[in-house]
Parts: sequence; structure tokens; C-alpha cells
Amino acid sequence: MGTISADFQDWAGERQQRMENVLLGLLPAAALAPQGLHDAMRYAVLGGGKRVRPLLAFAAGELSGADPERVAIAAAAVELIHAYSLVHDDLPCMDNDVLRRGKPTCHIQYDEATALLVGDSLQTLAFQLLAEHTLNDDPRRQLEMIRLLAQASGSRGMAGGQAIDLASVGQALSLPELEFMHIHKTGALIRAAALLGAHCGAALHDGALDGLNHYAKCIGLAFQVVDDVLDAEASTATLGKTAGKDAEQHKPTYVSLLGAAAARDMAQELHRDAVDALTSFGAKAQRLRDLAAYIVLRQF
Amino acid sequence: MGTISADFQDWAGERQQRMENVLLGLLPAAALAPQGLHDAMRYAVLGGGKRVRPLLAFAAGELSGADPERVAIAAAAVELIHAYSLVHDDLPCMDNDVLRRGKPTCHIQYDEATALLVGDSLQTLAFQLLAEHTLNDDPRRQLEMIRLLAQASGSRGMAGGQAIDLASVGQALSLPELEFMHIHKTGALIRAAALLGAHCGAALHDGALDGLNHYAKCIGLAFQVVDDVLDAEASTATLGKTAGKDAEQHKPTYVSLLGAAAARDMAQELHRDAVDALTSFGAKAQRLRDLAAYIVLRQF
Repeated sequence: MGTISADFQDWAGERQQRMENVLLGLLPAAALAPQGLHDAMRYAVLGGGKRVRPLLAFAAGELSGADPERVAIAAAAVELIHAYSLVHDDLPCMDNDVLRRGKPTCHIQYDEATALLVGDSLQTLAFQLLAEHTLNDDPRRQLEMIRLLAQASGSRGMAGGQAIDLASVGQALSLPELEFMHIHKTGALIRAAALLGAHCGAALHDGALDGLNHYAKCIGLAFQVVDDVLDAEASTATLGKTAGKDAEQHKPTYVSLLGAAAARDMAQELHRDAVDALTSFGAKAQRLRDLAAYIVLRQF
Repeated sequence: MGTISADFQDWAGERQQRMENVLLGLLPAAALAPQGLHDAMRYAVLGGGKRVRPLLAFAAGELSGADPERVAIAAAAVELIHAYSLVHDDLPCMDNDVLRRGKPTCHIQYDEATALLVGDSLQTLAFQLLAEHTLNDDPRRQLEMIRLLAQASGSRGMAGGQAIDLASVGQALSLPELEFMHIHKTGALIRAAALLGAHCGAALHDGALDGLNHYAKCIGLAFQVVDDVLDAEASTATLGKTAGKDAEQHKPTYVSLLGAAAARDMAQELHRDAVDALTSFGAKAQRLRDLAAYIVLRQF
């Protein structure tokens, strides 16, 4: 599977910083009316998060020689969708969580109505960005990017996965059912991040797109398996969000279904599958390989 | 100002029916997983509403000779944004309303978490439709339509107006402040409906677009003024939603600021302004004239 490149931390750190700057510039200024809403939108997005999805977009953009300035906009759109989903998921009627990225969640820092509108507005802004910036010389491919992001976020993607998750609390799920939920809840947006990054550059042939797709699917699932292991084993301080909530809420997880050791093995296997799917890309896929290792190896 | 064409009811009824059929076909089937979410999305959108925004899109499409099948998709996208905003506005942390279009609101019929995801998913679907159907032979104009809808719906449009509205409960607003709120809260999406309908056809020259814009701005405001009068004077049974809520919640309205008679006069004046803005279009704007009269004259 190879190890993480020696300069990966620099590569990732630079792009995380760029992402922060781009988001800072793209979010409405807090001085613009309605100021309370804009202030809360900035609170929910800026200054936190590992920006895994943007990093995937940048890494996938290297496959197609995409202009990093274009990739940054696509990555920002994906990150805004992710941020909106966190704000809504934390609401009392959903996961009812008070801590996120080491800070009070949006509805605790502001109020529920504001958090609702923050999520709504961040979603809208994501699509606005994809429509108003030039991301590909061919506007048809840009429309395809919007379609991809919408499909990944909506009722047949992320939001649908969230609905399945809610319905599954306290239920005994099988492994395939758990996988179905996560492929939607987190996997779809992770896949979209990789595809959107690549779509900012030259068109990939179908076989190459299939490879990227399979990589992203494996990585998305591995990400969730690792999350489950961390939730079961890490502390709230390390995570920056409330730990142990899955068990407390009797949520089915890979750890509760397989045990921690087998869950770790599963993450390793998904890692191998992901890397295998990149073979034909050669050196251009090195950052995707790095990211796969980074996602699977973080904390353990 | 002219009167409503004799065949307006037929024209509108046909398009309302078409809109219902198109929405029925575009919403995910209730049999598709996650079934609970899809069932609730259909509940929130189908079988209700006057479809004012779609009617505006169809009427504006006549200015540019737009293909009605294309307009129907754009109109559906606008209506989905409208429906999402109603579902979220009715939530306990917002207006806390239990009745909408004569039926229990979405979170009463299902639950709060489902209503949250319904709103989120309807918004996503709106943008998905605009990206995956061909709405104009020029994909650049289609991107412009997505940008327009996003701008009209987000923190500088509808959602922003909602934030201003929440912040204004119990406050003494001036007439310009009230207007600022409504131009965002309801006006922006009504304008977007008209513009998107026109954008499905041949490009309008700048002067014509300005005229349509001014018409839509006046109609959007008139719509709200009439709403305020109806809320103050009509019964819950007539409205299909809880009447008298504005006064009960001490919300500033055109009626509380101006009195009912002056509010009626204001609606008439906006009607005149709207119709004046259409002069250069001649007969092609007849349905827009009809709609202006319909909006201002409904119930009084």
C-alpha cells in the first residue's frame, strides 16, 4: 500500500490553509445584513475541521491536471455542504449535540432558529458557488458537477443516509444495512469531493473515472469505520466532539457489529482496495494514496 | 390596469394541473429508500398551494417564447425551494405552526427530524433539477439560472429575509425596514420565478429584463401586503393556515403599520406600477397582467 509521502503534511497543510482563506473570502462578510445570520454561517464553517473532503478534491484534481484555483471553489462547495449537514445534524431534533470541533455547536452558540437558517443558507451557497464561478471551460461539465453534488447531498445521498441513520437508532442492523447507510450518509459526499476535483480538469476516460469512483467509495467507507473505532476508543478531548455517543445512543456501528479488532481489519482491507483502484494513474495519484493512508491511519 | 382575461382561470388551472403532474414525476417515488423521507417530501409538496410562483414562471416564459416543458422544470425547482422554506418555517424553533394548506404541517404529520431532512432534501432537489434537465440550448444561461435561484434563496435572499423576520418579532419596524424584510423573504423568490421562466426562452434585451424585474418586485411586495390584509381579516378556514398569527405574535405587518385601508391602497398602487412596467411587451405580457390582478384581487 505504500507509506505516506514525506512531504504530505506540507502538501495538506498548504491546502488546508488555502481552503480556509478561500472559504473566508467566499462566505458573506459578517458586516453584511442580515449580520446575525452571516456571523453564524462563518462560525459554523471557519476555523475548524480537517478539511478531508477539500483535500480529496485537490488530490483528485491532480489526476486531470485541474487548475487548483478552480478546484478550490469546487472543494469549498463540498465543504459548505458538509458544514451545513453538521449544523443540522447537531440540532436537538437530530443528534442533539453541544460540542463540535472543540467549540459549542451552532445552535448552542446562537439559537436553534439561527442554526436552521445557517444550514439552509450554507447549502444554497454551495450551489451558488458552483454556478457563478468558472470551474471548467465546458459549461456542460460544470452543470454535471452541480448535478453530482446535488445527487450526493440529497434524499438519495447524504440526507437520505441521515434519515436511515435516524430510523436505525436502537435497531439491530446487518452489516450490509450498516454499509448501505454509510455509503449514503458520509460516502456519497466523499465521492462527490473526489469527482468534483477531477471534473475541474481534463475529462477522464470511463475506466479512469471508474477507478476514482471505486477509490472514493472505499475511502468513504474506511473513513466511517475509523470514525466508529475512534468514537468507541478516543476521548472527547481528542475528538473535539462528544465521544462514546454511539454506544450511549445504541447506534449500530462497525465496532458494535464486528468488534474493534475486526473493524480495524476492515479499514485496512478497504485501504488496500482503494489503493489498488489507483494503479493505472501512476505517480499522478500519489496524493490520493497519501490521503487514503492518512484517513485510515489517523490516531491508530 | 385592465381586468383579468376571461380565460385566465382556464389558463391557470391547466398550468396548476401540469405543475402537479410534473412535481409528481420529479419527486422520488415513495417506494424508493429511504421511504419515510420520500413519503414526507411528497406530502410537503403535492396536493396543495396555489402554485403562484410556477404560474409566474409560465407567464414570464411567454415573453421569451420559452418551451413550456422547459419552463415547467424551472417552475418546479422554484416551487421546491418555496415548499422547503414552508416546511422549515413551520418548525417549532421558527413559526411553530401546525396547519398548512389545510393539512397538518410536516413535522406534525411526521416528526421534527423528518421535517428538517425534508426541507434540506427539497432544496437539494431544486438545484438538481436545474442541473440535470436541459432548460436552455446555451448551458451558460442554465448556469445563470442556477445562480439566480441560489442568490434568491440564500442568506442574501429568502433565508436572509427569514432571519430578519425572526429578529423583528416584537420590534417596531419602520415601513422601509418592513419592505427590506419582505423584498428578501418573499420577493426574491417571486422575482426568481419570473426571471427563470423568461430565461428558458430567447434572451431578452436589458431594458426588457429591467421591466420584468420591476414588475416582479412590485408583485412580490403586493403579494405580501395582500397576505398581511388576509391574515388580519380572513378566517383560518378560508386561509388553510392559522389566521391572526401576525397580531398574536406581535409581528410588524403592513396592516399594523398602515392600517387595513392604507395597506389595500398600497397593494393597488403596486399593482399599477407592476402593470406599467410591462407596457413595452404588448400582448405577450397578458398573462403577467392577469396574474398581477389575480394576486392583488384574491379575496378582496
